Amino acid sequence: MARIVMKFGGTSMAGMERIRNVAARVKHVAEQGNEVAVVVSAMAGETDRLVGFCKEASPLYDPAEYDVVVASGEQVTSGLLAMTLKAMGVDARSWLGWQMPIHTVESHAKARIQSIDTEELLKAMSTGQVAVIPGFQGRMENGRVSTLGRGGSDTSAVAVAAAVKADRCDIYTDVNGVYTTDPRIVSRARKLDMVTYEEMLELASVGSKVLQTRSVELAMKEGVRVQVLSSFDDPTQEELPGTLIVSEEEMEAQIAKDSDMERQLITGIAADKNEAKVTVTRVPDRPGAVAHIFGPLAEASINVDMIIQNVGRDKGETDVTFTVPGADLARSIDILEKNKETIGFNRIIPDTKVSKVSVVGVGMKSHAGVAATMFKALAERGINILAVATSEIKVSVLIDEDETELAVRVLHSAYGLDAEEAA
Amino acid sequence: MARIVMKFGGTSMAGMERIRNVAARVKHVAEQGNEVAVVVSAMAGETDRLVGFCKEASPLYDPAEYDVVVASGEQVTSGLLAMTLKAMGVDARSWLGWQMPIHTVESHAKARIQSIDTEELLKAMSTGQVAVIPGFQGRMENGRVSTLGRGGSDTSAVAVAAAVKADRCDIYTDVNGVYTTDPRIVSRARKLDMVTYEEMLELASVGSKVLQTRSVELAMKEGVRVQVLSSFDDPTQEELPGTLIVSEEEMEAQIAKDSDMERQLITGIAADKNEAKVTVTRVPDRPGAVAHIFGPLAEASINVDMIIQNVGRDKGETDVTFTVPGADLARSIDILEKNKETIGFNRIIPDTKVSKVSVVGVGMKSHAGVAATMFKALAERGINILAVATSEIKVSVLIDEDETELAVRVLHSAYGLDAEEAA
Repeated sequence: MARIVMKFGGTSMAGMERIRNVAARVKHVAEQGNEVAVVVSAMAGETDRLVGFCKEASPLYDPAEYDVVVASGEQVTSGLLAMTLKAMGVDARSWLGWQMPIHTVESHAKARIQSIDTEELLKAMSTGQVAVIPGFQGRMENGRVSTLGRGGSDTSAVAVAAAVKADRCDIYTDVNGVYTTDPRIVSRARKLDMVTYEEMLELASVGSKVLQTRSVELAMKEGVRVQVLSSFDDPTQEELPGTLIVSEEEMEAQIAKDSDMERQLITGIAADKNEAKVTVTRVPDRPGAVAHIFGPLAEASINVDMIIQNVGRDKGETDVTFTVPGADLARSIDILEKNKETIGFNRIIPDTKVSKVSVVGVGMKSHAGVAATMFKALAERGINILAVATSEIKVSVLIDEDETELAVRVLHSAYGLDAEEAA
Repeated sequence: MARIVMKFGGTSMAGMERIRNVAARVKHVAEQGNEVAVVVSAMAGETDRLVGFCKEASPLYDPAEYDVVVASGEQVTSGLLAMTLKAMGVDARSWLGWQMPIHTVESHAKARIQSIDTEELLKAMSTGQVAVIPGFQGRMENGRVSTLGRGGSDTSAVAVAAAVKADRCDIYTDVNGVYTTDPRIVSRARKLDMVTYEEMLELASVGSKVLQTRSVELAMKEGVRVQVLSSFDDPTQEELPGTLIVSEEEMEAQIAKDSDMERQLITGIAADKNEAKVTVTRVPDRPGAVAHIFGPLAEASINVDMIIQNVGRDKGETDVTFTVPGADLARSIDILEKNKETIGFNRIIPDTKVSKVSVVGVGMKSHAGVAATMFKALAERGINILAVATSEIKVSVLIDEDETELAVRVLHSAYGLDAEEAA
């Protein structure tokens, strides 16, 4: 017997037929003798509909009332799932955010969960009653409704799993796990049995949007074992294993135990086309000059990723190139222009036709030569590297956007990630 | 300055454009210096949509989860109205059923309000903040969501008005008041300035569905002055007066004060086509025999209205005729058939082609001859009376359904209710 949190997204909850499928799957897990809590999203499209009303009410809608309005979507699906389970003979009840309660900080529309009262919940679950919990919502200290921000239900599920000390948090999605890379780009991409929190965070931050980043951070902090798996298999069959997201220690222990599992150097390849490159030309080449560029950007909470200071221009001047999220490009240019005199540059050259390709893996901590393999493989195919950034478990390169798919395929092969058969 | 509760139904809340109209009207009342609480229904059609999901989940859906699902409709509109008011510069906030809370008995889908905690609410209202309260919902002692049954928002509004000791509870509807009769039947129907609770109850119970009966009963019990008025006039203009529903004492005082107001013998004429007539033939004519008929019906909570025991049949036998709500006809017949041996009848003759027409007025308490006028007027037009029932302020006759409109017109004229110009 285990204690399991199951989380279903909006696509799985879109309409009664799908909710019945979800209920059948929950029933299956509960009838194996597990204690089960289910965290649900609103029906696909419902949150957009409700947000649409708010925007129609006023472009600058009141965030406290926004929370009251949008939290209703998950209230509906949690009630519907609980009644469907009961109709199938499975004892169940819904626990709304204010009923448990799920305590959040006082911050509307982007609240963080502080704590969850689980005494009543655990008592009910211990009798075999399935707890159905609306994701995304909570209650603030002042008694008002709060929500966690879009996609917050993943975070709700992990927080509930941490609070009830669940053996596992199963997140059902429209993919059946985390892959070595996007299977739409590389047909020989392989599903991973296990990744570490750190790898998952790097993969998520560079474009593999399987889980909300915040939920993985929380799982890492709280040591919650998360499994990503598909909600579209037959619910009455034994589930196909998904991808387990665990600590590095558990991963090491598993490798030590299981002779079939090999320590991989690289876990996955990710690509992100939402970066923009900015070159600021003819900046005075003296100490502190660069601070005039990056200080104002940091103040505006713009996340600068890669930075290259070109050398060899006219004496006393240099070009500075860096990347920012594409969504922040216009704002970045605006800020630089406003500080033109202090910085003392000639002009700004923006470029959105770039992409960041990253190789990620905890294995590289203890291995040299990862970057060298990458540069060699790309060079052999004539792919030009515009910039490089590294972390302990990641090497990223900035390349021409048109070469993204080619680069991903080349690297997937170069690190021996290709499956024997196409995915 | 007064303390006013305003209530808006689903048609008034159907979409942001209408919600903006409601907000403009609330703003107008608040800016006159009144303390305002607004009670709102779900958007027209929304509760049906949510009930539809529940029925799809299971025909015998769990009532506790039904409440969780359907209460969301009013949560959405209360949040939207509050944010619209704020966007218009009017301080406002929503107060959900569990937040005040509105305490109800432990009965899902048909709860009754027991009490409302108003301390926080009144504190907020005294600062000029408009309180927006979702109708229809409450919280049970065990902390779960309850709802009051369809149309319950009128009752919520009256309960809030009683709890905050409001000077008036204004119920905005799609008609601009209570009329002497249905203006679609009688073009010369007149809008009433004032009716008593008792008259309103009789008019409601016989088919004038302006307000939920339960809300009028509560208003009478708590002495809440209710005004019915139209939500479709221009919200920026001074409101047209609607119909005030008050105690008999207030009505008397008003008549004594205002020389223009005349004591009317009859306040209104109502018709109800949803009655069914049942004749049970050849019942043994001995003491207690009738109890065998009405006992089992009462046990099944079937409301028997008019009863006629025909005389003059074969010696020792009699026919019994009575009326029940049309919706209960099939069940009534079923119950009688099951008790055929105990009752000892020959056969059951159902008839749904009947209608009940009633004249209502507190004025008839002190006047004889009301029934005589009625019988004479109907007889002159050849309308046959199948049964008669009376109360202190009402005389009802059962007639052929096809003659309903004719009877209503004849009686409206006979009691001098016709307006000089068509409504």
